[in-house]
Amino acid sequence: MAHVAGCELCAAGGSAAWTEVAADDRLRVVRVLDAPEFPAFYRVIWRDHVAELSDLSEADRAHCLSVVVAVERVLREQLAPTKINLAALGNMVPHLHWHVIGRFDWDSHFPQPIWGARQREVLPPAAGRLRQPLNKLDELIRQLVETRSPGFGSIGG
Amino acid sequence: MAHVAGCELCAAGGSAAWTEVAADDRLRVVRVLDAPEFPAFYRVIWRDHVAELSDLSEADRAHCLSVVVAVERVLREQLAPTKINLAALGNMVPHLHWHVIGRFDWDSHFPQPIWGARQREVLPPAAGRLRQPLNKLDELIRQLVETRSPGFGSIGG
Repeated sequence: MAHVAGCELCAAGGSAAWTEVAADDRLRVVRVLDAPEFPAFYRVIWRDHVAELSDLSEADRAHCLSVVVAVERVLREQLAPTKINLAALGNMVPHLHWHVIGRFDWDSHFPQPIWGARQREVLPPAAGRLRQPLNKLDELIRQLVETRSPGFGSIGG
Repeated sequence: MAHVAGCELCAAGGSAAWTEVAADDRLRVVRVLDAPEFPAFYRVIWRDHVAELSDLSEADRAHCLSVVVAVERVLREQLAPTKINLAALGNMVPHLHWHVIGRFDWDSHFPQPIWGARQREVLPPAAGRLRQPLNKLDELIRQLVETRSPGFGSIGG
């Protein structure tokens, strides 16, 4: 498994920017903490240092996307967001990671992408508007990712 | 197959905003024409009107992503972009479609997302800087999507 010195997604340590909620031998799932306007924001980070989805084998790609979809399903079932946004960009950190973001019609940027122009101020803070506490979602995601049978490549399929 | 009146991605007709380069019974691939600063910009549009990736069956999801990856591979092999950006947002048009965008370190917004803040002016026009003509990429994508054996769910895997 390739690791690159100086890559913040290769570093094993924690970060103030996110909290890890689940992990297996190929990937980690973290909840983003440094974008409080978008509290329903998870990332699926591939462990191996590859830049692009097409660098993965077909089996690894299926596994990676099955976890992205599992996170998406937990967000939809628990929070009923207006829309899910999925993105693998990596222009700043070219180490494969997926943003999985629950978007709401009241959020600060909707319907613009979170990287676009702000549309409104949101008070009270966004996290307080969610239907369920985020630690409940974290636990549901952990169970889905960590309690599968080994080799069961697709979850929630 | 669900179709929704007024959804621009359900409409079968053409558009000045894109040119269709490939199609099969489940999806279409178009090249975006109305974002000239990002000429290496394709979309994979699912035919059925579903909002989210997790609305697809596992087989359909694999097929959809295999075409996303095929487009990504053609972009990488022909244009050697600095990075590929993948995104399924749909806040404006909640009908599943994937943006597959070749990004370059000289482009107008790099390393920001295309939806973010402009970083520089680019002259001469971006399309003239690509290594290969876009109609060559269109044809390669068409061959990959349209000449597979029926039922062969994964291309370029």
